[in-house]
Amino acid sequence: MSQDPLVVFMPSGKRGRVPAGTKVLAAARQLGVDLDSVCGGRGICSKCQVSPSFGDFPKLGLTAREGALSGINAVEERYDRVRGLKPGRRLGCQAEVQGDMVIDVPPESQVHRQVVRKAADARAIVMDPATKLAYVEVPEPDMHEPSGDFQRLVEALQREWGVERVTAPLPLMARLQPALRKGGWAVTVALHKGHRDEAHRILDIWPGFYEGRLYGLAIDLGSTTIAAHLTDLRDGSVKASVGVMNPQIRFGEDLMSRVSYSMMNEGGAAEMTRVVRAALSELAASLAEEAGITPRDILEAVIVCNPVMHHLLLGIDPVELGQAPFALATSESLSLDAAELGLTGMAEAARLFLLPCIAGHVGADAAGVALAERPDRAEELTLIVDVGTNAEILLGDKDGVLACSSPTGPAFEGAQISSGQRAAPGAIERVEIDAQTKEPRFKVIGCDLWSDDPGFTEAVAATGVTGICGSGIIEAVAEMRMAGLLDARGLIGSAEATGTARSEPQGRTHGYLIHDGSAEGGARVLVTQGDIRAIQLAKSALYAGARLLMDERGVEKVDKVVLAGAFGAHISPKHAMVLGMIPDAPLEKVTSAGNAAGTGARIALCNVSARAEIEALARKIVKVETAIAPRFQEHFVNANAIPHAVDPFPNLATVASLPNVNFNAGGGGGEGGGRRRRRG
Amino acid sequence: MSQDPLVVFMPSGKRGRVPAGTKVLAAARQLGVDLDSVCGGRGICSKCQVSPSFGDFPKLGLTAREGALSGINAVEERYDRVRGLKPGRRLGCQAEVQGDMVIDVPPESQVHRQVVRKAADARAIVMDPATKLAYVEVPEPDMHEPSGDFQRLVEALQREWGVERVTAPLPLMARLQPALRKGGWAVTVALHKGHRDEAHRILDIWPGFYEGRLYGLAIDLGSTTIAAHLTDLRDGSVKASVGVMNPQIRFGEDLMSRVSYSMMNEGGAAEMTRVVRAALSELAASLAEEAGITPRDILEAVIVCNPVMHHLLLGIDPVELGQAPFALATSESLSLDAAELGLTGMAEAARLFLLPCIAGHVGADAAGVALAERPDRAEELTLIVDVGTNAEILLGDKDGVLACSSPTGPAFEGAQISSGQRAAPGAIERVEIDAQTKEPRFKVIGCDLWSDDPGFTEAVAATGVTGICGSGIIEAVAEMRMAGLLDARGLIGSAEATGTARSEPQGRTHGYLIHDGSAEGGARVLVTQGDIRAIQLAKSALYAGARLLMDERGVEKVDKVVLAGAFGAHISPKHAMVLGMIPDAPLEKVTSAGNAAGTGARIALCNVSARAEIEALARKIVKVETAIAPRFQEHFVNANAIPHAVDPFPNLATVASLPNVNFNAGGGGGEGGGRRRRRG
Repeated sequence: MSQDPLVVFMPSGKRGRVPAGTKVLAAARQLGVDLDSVCGGRGICSKCQVSPSFGDFPKLGLTAREGALSGINAVEERYDRVRGLKPGRRLGCQAEVQGDMVIDVPPESQVHRQVVRKAADARAIVMDPATKLAYVEVPEPDMHEPSGDFQRLVEALQREWGVERVTAPLPLMARLQPALRKGGWAVTVALHKGHRDEAHRILDIWPGFYEGRLYGLAIDLGSTTIAAHLTDLRDGSVKASVGVMNPQIRFGEDLMSRVSYSMMNEGGAAEMTRVVRAALSELAASLAEEAGITPRDILEAVIVCNPVMHHLLLGIDPVELGQAPFALATSESLSLDAAELGLTGMAEAARLFLLPCIAGHVGADAAGVALAERPDRAEELTLIVDVGTNAEILLGDKDGVLACSSPTGPAFEGAQISSGQRAAPGAIERVEIDAQTKEPRFKVIGCDLWSDDPGFTEAVAATGVTGICGSGIIEAVAEMRMAGLLDARGLIGSAEATGTARSEPQGRTHGYLIHDGSAEGGARVLVTQGDIRAIQLAKSALYAGARLLMDERGVEKVDKVVLAGAFGAHISPKHAMVLGMIPDAPLEKVTSAGNAAGTGARIALCNVSARAEIEALARKIVKVETAIAPRFQEHFVNANAIPHAVDPFPNLATVASLPNVNFNAGGGGGEGGGRRRRRG
Repeated sequence: MSQDPLVVFMPSGKRGRVPAGTKVLAAARQLGVDLDSVCGGRGICSKCQVSPSFGDFPKLGLTAREGALSGINAVEERYDRVRGLKPGRRLGCQAEVQGDMVIDVPPESQVHRQVVRKAADARAIVMDPATKLAYVEVPEPDMHEPSGDFQRLVEALQREWGVERVTAPLPLMARLQPALRKGGWAVTVALHKGHRDEAHRILDIWPGFYEGRLYGLAIDLGSTTIAAHLTDLRDGSVKASVGVMNPQIRFGEDLMSRVSYSMMNEGGAAEMTRVVRAALSELAASLAEEAGITPRDILEAVIVCNPVMHHLLLGIDPVELGQAPFALATSESLSLDAAELGLTGMAEAARLFLLPCIAGHVGADAAGVALAERPDRAEELTLIVDVGTNAEILLGDKDGVLACSSPTGPAFEGAQISSGQRAAPGAIERVEIDAQTKEPRFKVIGCDLWSDDPGFTEAVAATGVTGICGSGIIEAVAEMRMAGLLDARGLIGSAEATGTARSEPQGRTHGYLIHDGSAEGGARVLVTQGDIRAIQLAKSALYAGARLLMDERGVEKVDKVVLAGAFGAHISPKHAMVLGMIPDAPLEKVTSAGNAAGTGARIALCNVSARAEIEALARKIVKVETAIAPRFQEHFVNANAIPHAVDPFPNLATVASLPNVNFNAGGGGGEGGGRRRRRG
C-alpha cells in the first residue's frame, strides 16, 4: 500500500494521513487536534498521553492492526517504570504512527478541555488560560556570541513555543541565571499571554521540568462582600473559596456613602484604597494556606467590581462617580502587575486583569455578568438583573444589548429593615403564609426544618431565630400580599380587616408578626409598614430600570428573566414576580444564575480570549443612564404598587392569585385607579 | 495669477505651493518642514514662531510682497500684548499664506534643532527626545456615551498628535480627572514614546496649557564615580552636572572584588544594589535642587555602565560575570519605570533607559562610547580606548567594528602606586623631565603654575603636594623613559648609571624622586620600581587588547586613536604612545573624546532614534573575549617593554627619541632580544 497511514483522533473525529514514522503528537498538531504538551515532546511531562485503539472501525472506514503504532521505546519504558503509565496509554511524543490508527485523546490530555459549570443550563468554560507552563531547553552561553541568558531563553521560547515578543519583570530577571544553571540549561517557565498587544511575560521560572500547578484567583469585589475562588489554571477546578466582608464598610454601607466619605475626608479615598488592597492580599494568602499551596503558586487574579470599588482599588478618587455625568476615570479593561497595587499573598510577578466598566454606574461586575450569561448570544429577549446594593440590569438578545444601573439601596440585603439582618445562621430566609389561617411558617439559615416541623425549636436552639435576611423579607412581603394581609398599594391590614391577631397596630399603621421569641428572651420578628415601604422603594427602582431598558428596546415584555447575584440564587421567582421586582414572564423562564459576576471573573481567568470578547461586548452594549431618563420617575412611581399599578402580569396570574384587598380607609387615588386598570 | 502661492521655508529651503489662506504651520507640516508646536495650533504655546521675509529673492525665484502674509489677528495681538512677540515674529498657527513667501524658522522653533557638542570634531546631537509636551483638548464626558476620561484623552491624543497606542501608569490615572476638570477639558501631557513596540505613555499631566520644561538625566554609572548631567529635554542644554563617588567602593575597589563580595557574603549583591540605587536617587534630588527645579520635572534617565554595575543596579547577582563564560543575565537595552528600581528624586512615572551591553566584559558604557563616536561610520580605521579600571576597546570603521575589554586594573587611576592618589587638588597631574639635567618639574591639580615657576610654593600652600594621580604617573614614567632614567624593559637606572641623585636606591631596585616635601612635613613623591611594574601591567593589558582586535581585523596599524573616559581627557597622546599604551599612530590622529560613554547617554536621552541605532550597532559589533584568546598572553608579554618589545613605533620615532639604555647588569634575555628587533 503506497498511501500514508490514516489517523483518526477521537473524540474530535479529526482525521488525516501522515507519513509512517510520524509521532502521534506531531500528527495531532498537523491535524489541529487538541493534544497537550508542556515539555515540547521530550517524554518528560506525559501531558500528551493517548490511548490507541485497535480493531475494525467500519464507521470510521479503517482497520487498525497491532503494529499500527511503534512499540514502547526506552523513553516510555523509563517513564512507565518511574512514574507509571495507565494501561493502554502511550506517550504521544514517543509513539510513531506506522499504519491506519484510531487514537483516543483522554480529557486530561486536552489543553482546551471543558469545565462543567454547576448551574444546569450554563455553558461550559473552555480552558485556555493566559498563563501556562512551558518547558524549554536553552543553549549555553558562548563567549564568542555573548548574548544574555534572557535573550537565549526568549529565542528558545520563540522557537519551541511559537511566541513572538517575550518580556520578564525585573525580579524574574534576577532568578533567571541560577535557575538555568541548576536545571542544566533546561527550565520550565510560567508564560503569560499579554492582553491585547502586550508581549508574553515570564511570570516564574523553575529549574528543569516543573510539574507544579498554576493557580489564579477569580475575585468578585463587592461593596459589601469580597468573594474569591482559587482556581487551578490547568483544569479550571476551584480549590478553595472564601468570602469576607469588604473592610470599607466602616467608611459607609453603600457606595454613595463611600464616595461622600472621600469627599468629606482628606485622604479618605487613599485610606479606602489601602484597606481594600490589604483585604485582597489577606484573602489571597488565606486561600493559599487553605489549599495547601504557597502564594508563589498564584500567578493571576481576575477582578470584577462596580465602578466605585474599581476606582478605589486602583487608587483613583471616586468623587466623579458621585455626581452627573458620572464620568469614569478609565473604562476599558486593565492588565496590571499585582505589585503595582502592592498586592501580596500571590506571586511577586502575578498579573491582574480587571474587566471593563460599561458605564459610570454599570461596572466590571455587570461586564462579568454579561460574560457569564452572554445576552448578546440569546435567541430570546433576556432580562438579567444582578441584585445587590445597586442593581445592574442588562436586556438583550443577539440583536443587541442594553444596560443600566438602578439604585435599589440595601433593603434587599436586609439593611433598613426593622428586624433585618445579613444572611447568617439564625436569619429567617424562607417564609410561607397560609392564605386561610394567615399563619406563617419559616425556615432559618443553618436549619433544614420548617418552623412547624417537629424538632425545629431544638434544631435552632444554638442560633435562635435572630431576624430576617434579604430573601426572607422578600418572601414575607410577597406571601403577605398573596395571603391578603397587604394590599396592592403596600398597606398592611389591621387585625380586624385581615382576621389575624398577628396584624399588630403600630401607631397609625400595622405590622405583621412572623415570630415571637420574646418569651424565651429571643427576637420578635415583625414586618412593619416601614419595612414594606423600604422594599417597595427598592423593588420600584429595580423594576423601573428594567422597564426603561424595555422602553429603549421598544418592547412591553421579555422572554426570559435571569436573576444574578449571590442573592439572586435565594429569591424564588414566583415571589419576585408577586412583588413586582421583575417584569411578568412565564415562571419557568425565570431562572437564577447564581453569582454571575463571579462566574464572569472565573471565565476570564480560565479563558484568555474571553477577555477580548467581553471588551468587545462592553463596547457594543448600549448604556442607559437612569438618573437622566425622563420616564424613570414615572416608571418608579407606577412600580410602587405590588406588583404594579399599570403593567399587566398575565403569567403571574396563572400561578398566583392576589386578593383584591384595599386597606386604605380613604380609598381611591392614583394607585387605586391604577389597580383598577390592571388586566392580570 | 491662478497658481497657488509659493512658500519657501528657510534654513531648510523646503518649498512648495499651498492654497491661499493656508496657515504657515499647516504649510510647514505639508512640506515636511521642522516647525514646533505644543498646543497643536491654538495660538497658546508660541512654539511655532516664524519670521516672514519680504522683498526680491532672485536666488529663490520669487518676490514676496507685503500682504503675502495675512495681517496680525486677534490671537496674535493678544499673545503679543500678554507675553510679547519679538519684532518681525509671527505665530505660524495664525498667520495665513496669501502670496509667494519666504519664511525663516528660527532655531528655537525647530523641534529637531541641533545641540552643539563641546569637542571640536564631535557631531551635533539632533534633538528628538522620547518625552515631549503635548497640549490637547478633550471632549467632556457624556452620559449617553459613557467612556472613561482616560479613553477620551487617548482618542484626542491619537487624533491631534497622530500617536497610536497610549497608556498611563496607575498614579497618573489618579491625577487625570482633577487635571481635566481644572483645565476646563484642556490639558498638557508629557508624552513618552515607548521603546521598540511599547505604547506611548503619559508620564505627567497638567491642567490647561503647561509651559514648564522637561528634564532628563544622562548618567554614567562607573565603578568608581557616578556622573550625571541634568539635561533640558527641549533644547538639550545641560542645566547641572555632578559627579559623586560610587558608594559601592566600600565593598571593593574594582569590579571583580565586588563580584567576590557578592559571592562571599549572603545578601551582598542586594546590599550593593540598595546603595547604588540610593546614590542615584540622591544624585537626582541634588541635581534638581541645584537647578532650581523639582524632582517631578525629571521624567527620564538614560544610564550607561559596565556589566557588573548594570546587573547590580538591576538587582541581578553579578556572580556569573566573575567567571567564564561571563554570561550576562540580559544583554539588550532595557526600558523600565524608575519606580521598578525604587528610584526617587525624579517624577513618580519617570522612565529609565539602559543602553545594551555588548558582552560580559563590554558593557553599556562601551555601547555609549560607540554611540558617541560611531566607529561604524568612520572612513579611517579607528581604535577607541575607554580607560578606566577596565579598559573597553573598540576597533573599526564602516566595514565593521570589533570590541573587547581588558583588565587594566586601577593603576591608571593612581591606585596601587606608592605615592598614588585620586585626581584631587594637591595631586601631581603633569610631569616634565629635562633629558640633560634629569631634573623634573610638575603641575598639581588646583594650580596653573609649573613647580619651577615663581610663586609656585605659595600657590600650592593651601593643598600642598600630596601625591601623584593617574595622568601624572603616566607622564612621569614616559618622561623617565625619554630622559634615559628608565630602560625599555622598565628598569630604573641607579644614580651612577643615570647621573642624577634623584635616582635613589630602594633595596635591590631604584626609585626616582619627583618631589621632596619632607622638610616641610609634606610628602616625598617617588616613582618606585614597583610603580613602574604596575603601570607596565596595566598598559600591557590595554595594548594587548587593542592588538588582539587588530589581529582579528588582520591589520598591523590603525589610522586613528581616540582616548575616551574622563581620564582619557588628561593623558597626553605623546606620553601614552611613549609608554606603549596604544599602538603607534600619527600623533595628530590621537585625540581625546572626553567622557564618551556619558556623551552616549546624553545622545540617547536627547534623541530617541539613537536608542534603536545603538541597539542595532551593539548587535553588529563582533566581540572578542580576551580571557580565552590564545594570543592575548603573547601580546601581553610583548607589550611589557616600553613602548614595546617587537612592534615598531615609526610615528613615535618622529616626535620622541627614546635613549637605548639598559640598566640590567646581566643584560640579554628575551626582552633585550626583542628590543634589538625593533625597527622604530
